[in-house]
Parts: sequence; C-alpha cells; structure tokens
Amino acid sequence: MVATVTLDRLEPLSEEQCFELLRSGFLGRVGVSMGGTPIVLPVNYALLDRDVVFRSAPGTKLSAAVLGTRVAFEVDDADPLYRAGWSVLVIGHADEIRDEQTLAAARELPLRAWAGGDRDHYVRIEAEHVSGRRLGSDG
Amino acid sequence: MVATVTLDRLEPLSEEQCFELLRSGFLGRVGVSMGGTPIVLPVNYALLDRDVVFRSAPGTKLSAAVLGTRVAFEVDDADPLYRAGWSVLVIGHADEIRDEQTLAAARELPLRAWAGGDRDHYVRIEAEHVSGRRLGSDG
Repeated sequence: MVATVTLDRLEPLSEEQCFELLRSGFLGRVGVSMGGTPIVLPVNYALLDRDVVFRSAPGTKLSAAVLGTRVAFEVDDADPLYRAGWSVLVIGHADEIRDEQTLAAARELPLRAWAGGDRDHYVRIEAEHVSGRRLGSDG
Repeated sequence: MVATVTLDRLEPLSEEQCFELLRSGFLGRVGVSMGGTPIVLPVNYALLDRDVVFRSAPGTKLSAAVLGTRVAFEVDDADPLYRAGWSVLVIGHADEIRDEQTLAAARELPLRAWAGGDRDHYVRIEAEHVSGRRLGSDG
C-alpha cells in the first residue's frame, strides 16, 4: 500500500468566519432544482443581518424556481497562482420579502439585479445551515 | 402606469461563445441535489474537447453526489465597477472517466482538486445543455 500524498489542506471555517466572508462578497450563486434538474445561477447579493438578500425580476426562471423552496447559496474566491481559496455554502428557505420595514432595509442594500428593473422581488434566504472551507497550500 | 426603466441588458450567448468562456475559466461550481437538498460546490475544472472535467476524491460528498447523476455546472465572472459580467450554465450527466485513453488525456489537463490526492476520480460532465448570458451596461 502506497501512502497517499495530500497536497493541500482543507480547513473547515467557523460560522463566524463564514459570515465574515459572506459579508466581503457581492457575487454568489443560487442552486435550485427545476423540475428535477439542478441549476445554478449567479446573483448579486448582500447580507441583511444574517440573511442573504438578492433581487429577482418577477416572472423569471429564478423567481419561479427559488420562491418558497429550500435553496443553496454559494460564494467563493480562489487564487490559482497561490493555490489558495475559500468557499461558503448556505442552505436555507428562500422567500420574497413583503414586510414593509424589512423591504425598506433591503432597498438600502448595495444590490443590483443582473437584469435590473423597478419591480424586482427582494428575495431573502434564511440560513439554516452555513458551512465553509478554506484551502491552504502546504508548500 | 409608470414605465419601467431597465438599466441593464442581458444578452444570450451562442453555444460557441459559451464554450469560449468555459475554456477561459478555471473555477466553476457544481450544483447537485443531495437527498432533496440542493448544494453548490466549487471545483477547479478544464475542458476536454466539449466535456467539463474536474477531480474529486473518492468517498467525498462531491463524488457521492455527482457520479451517475445529472448535474449543473456554472462559471461566471463579474466586474462590479463596470457593472458587466457573464455566466455560463452547463447541464449534463456526470460520470467517472474510466477509459484509459481518455484518462491519460484528463491527467494532462491543468487540473487541481480542492483537496489534492493521488487517487482522485476524474469526473466528466457531458454537456447536454449549454446556455450563457452576458450583462452589458446601458450607460
């Protein structure tokens, strides 16, 4: 039996580290299942307290797929030269923000929809599960 | 009725443009369903002809989730300053590469697993569906 050489270290991140990294980003990806097929779509996002918030135009695939369902949300960053990176995964229920007070707060966020419009939904993902890992190079 | 001001243009990309962008990237995200819950995980990838190839350590969540199933694969890039970006989504069946000739070709790809190891699977996603969009700013 030949020993396996592990070139990289994959360090799990604490919940606080995950939220710190989530607050540092602006582009994430939403993963949902559409009729049994997984899809992944990019969104500009921001955090409202501990919820991930993004905009979505009514009537779009994204709105239809995410509202009222459990979704995945991922943010990452990687440097190919230094072989370093991190990723954070949030799993949670996605819903439209309808409460006026929360909506007012969401409108203050630095959020841009990929296809902008005045009538966008503000979608909130309430994090039920947050995990992350950082890749550090051994040498 | 107030006219809706659309700030951005979302242009669909041709299949050729999608593959050109796929060839330019190195970090993508795999979206799968694990026991009914969608997850999104980052992978370093490369193209082998028109298949997306990445490495995955046997026994990991990623290997268990993707092998033999239909998965989503997403690559994107965005510039917040110029409000420009693009994303490409591939949907296809993921399988381990076992054919020796293809495996030899896969080993020549500039691929690094997030957690390196000698015994990695080489996973191939055969693209059944490829779509992309580019976000251009109007002004």
